[in-house]
Amino acid sequence: MSVYDAIRMRRDVRAEFTGERISEPQLTRILQAGHNAPSVGNTQPWDFVVVQNPDTLETFADHVADCRRNFADSLPPERRETFDPIKIEGICESGTGIVVTYDPSRGGANILGRHTVDDTGVFSAVLAIQNIWLAAVAEGIGVGWVSFYDEEFLTDLVGVPAPVRPIAWLCVGPVSQFQQTPDLVRFGWRDGRPLDDAVHRETF
Amino acid sequence: MSVYDAIRMRRDVRAEFTGERISEPQLTRILQAGHNAPSVGNTQPWDFVVVQNPDTLETFADHVADCRRNFADSLPPERRETFDPIKIEGICESGTGIVVTYDPSRGGANILGRHTVDDTGVFSAVLAIQNIWLAAVAEGIGVGWVSFYDEEFLTDLVGVPAPVRPIAWLCVGPVSQFQQTPDLVRFGWRDGRPLDDAVHRETF
Repeated sequence: MSVYDAIRMRRDVRAEFTGERISEPQLTRILQAGHNAPSVGNTQPWDFVVVQNPDTLETFADHVADCRRNFADSLPPERRETFDPIKIEGICESGTGIVVTYDPSRGGANILGRHTVDDTGVFSAVLAIQNIWLAAVAEGIGVGWVSFYDEEFLTDLVGVPAPVRPIAWLCVGPVSQFQQTPDLVRFGWRDGRPLDDAVHRETF
Repeated sequence: MSVYDAIRMRRDVRAEFTGERISEPQLTRILQAGHNAPSVGNTQPWDFVVVQNPDTLETFADHVADCRRNFADSLPPERRETFDPIKIEGICESGTGIVVTYDPSRGGANILGRHTVDDTGVFSAVLAIQNIWLAAVAEGIGVGWVSFYDEEFLTDLVGVPAPVRPIAWLCVGPVSQFQQTPDLVRFGWRDGRPLDDAVHRETF
């Protein structure tokens, strides 16, 4: 699949997981794609924790459901009505979670490129996520990034040692289809804006 | 070009810019690729400031040279010797800078998915960068992420209004070739680690 097709077809998947599990060769290929990401000072500060134990998936799904309720309760009534039918995770249905972590200590004291902009460390791990996401599309594998969780809960759940921190839970699994329109647009939560609005010349 | 080939060929480019300028159609296509990135709550919190004025490029390059000297001065002697020949930017040679910014206010007060992990906002803008990077490879366009700068300097240089912040300067332009081996490995700064070291099962 071409780069542009993968970028165009990529969706944040919630409802389209088939319930089958990703094969090991596919999993290895998409993790290798993540591992090929650029990183500040070539630190490769990411790790990937592959979670497939049904009990762990269910424990995490329960926690996410709690966080979802908290968010719903914080919304004004008309937004709550829009939010209610939106599915925000496919933790159990996907069969596989990839917890992506960031280790700020990797690379030691003198990290080339991080002395001025410290955030470039954690940004490197985010670049790995996008590689995983696009490689997955090429494999017919859906990815859904879940962010309805407390970082401390996830840290304990998969035993992430300080100073490493989890930065994402990705639901990863075979899908029946990729939706043409992003879920949040389809469900009326928020439309996109035109590219022209995002592009500026010489100054912001 | 296939997703996997783009991921494999992608390099952080410094020395291989030809001095030609990227064409407008190519620029639009890679910015559209960035704009197709996923974002928390579909906020699309990125903007892209395209800088091609030679005076601005030179001003930024001078500032980066200062930051480079500061970093070199901070290194122990043996690391300094390794660092000295490494080129860390191609700001003027690339002919185009894309300043990627992050607007934390986009999407208002109730952002779906950011109430628990606030960083998912800025992470969204980083995902856009990786889309740009991979689309560029497919176009034969090199990208080099420069992080040797003070955020305040860059904010002023391209007139980024608070609360928006610049998160990256990307040097973007046609290249003679993509190196097979990353610069930091070729120059002996830091080797990569095997994928197996990065992958964990069930727990970290």
